[in-house]
Amino acid sequence: MRPVELQRYIRTIPDFPRPGILFRDITPLLGNAAAFRAAIDAMAAAAEAVRPGAIVGIESRGFLFGAPLADRLGLPFVPIRKEGKLPAARLTVEYALEYGESRLDIHQDALEPGTAAYIVDDVLATGGTALAAAKLVELLGANVAGAGFLIELAGLGGRERLAGYRVDTLMTFEEA
Amino acid sequence: MRPVELQRYIRTIPDFPRPGILFRDITPLLGNAAAFRAAIDAMAAAAEAVRPGAIVGIESRGFLFGAPLADRLGLPFVPIRKEGKLPAARLTVEYALEYGESRLDIHQDALEPGTAAYIVDDVLATGGTALAAAKLVELLGANVAGAGFLIELAGLGGRERLAGYRVDTLMTFEEA
Repeated sequence: MRPVELQRYIRTIPDFPRPGILFRDITPLLGNAAAFRAAIDAMAAAAEAVRPGAIVGIESRGFLFGAPLADRLGLPFVPIRKEGKLPAARLTVEYALEYGESRLDIHQDALEPGTAAYIVDDVLATGGTALAAAKLVELLGANVAGAGFLIELAGLGGRERLAGYRVDTLMTFEEA
Repeated sequence: MRPVELQRYIRTIPDFPRPGILFRDITPLLGNAAAFRAAIDAMAAAAEAVRPGAIVGIESRGFLFGAPLADRLGLPFVPIRKEGKLPAARLTVEYALEYGESRLDIHQDALEPGTAAYIVDDVLATGGTALAAAKLVELLGANVAGAGFLIELAGLGGRERLAGYRVDTLMTFEEA
């Protein structure tokens, strides 16, 4: 299955979680074994191209793609979690959401300095979450080898916001 | 690496998230590629033995093990999420926590009736979350083929609470 064919396994739900938002639902893709495998194939190939030393997955849908990638590529997996969920010594970054702000944590011992980390999430929208993840990686003295997403929502500025980082996406929806 | 050797990749953090709790931190296991791979090897073998038709992962640490299992076994992956996060028509169950209660959702179209679903999470403690997940699977008319966990916290009643279901765990900590 080619990446372009995977797009039909994404279901669009209007007005979720708020009126006016078109939510891109990945559960039909997860629920089709061939589509899920093809997505991981393509994401793994993109990640492997930059020879990372670790996969960093962003809670919680980034875990769905990052964990199989780490398993496939034989790499360590590092979770970035919402504030307060990681139990050991951690670093926190605050970042802006459309309304208000949020925080992400990483364990201080999660990455050796100099490690080339590949960041994984399901959707690239405004890029705020991914940029916060990149900041956490760099605060540990590691490097961002790239960032991979299943879906890119074009028109929200994510790719521009991640300028300077390699960005891999499998499919694009135009968000106007 | 044998499952018994994996236990040393679990870090115990006292007094997290509350005083008196010994938190079993799985991030050192995730962060060691050989240990993570060995854990997925063993969990995949246990799941494969019951020939499931789908893997059901519980948000969010269940995603870390369930998604690689689905990828390895070529099976659909179905997420069970905390209330309000799944965008399409859903079923909800309420279950008791140590203090208060919580809710889990599943999409109504997530499993065909009769599907043998294998439930995955990181830790089996009291069994409340896993039992709620089993209830959601059965509300859809599917069957629970078994439930697999990386860690069993013995002494909290989880295995007893899941009596009637096949339960697979890789390692056990005695919780008094």
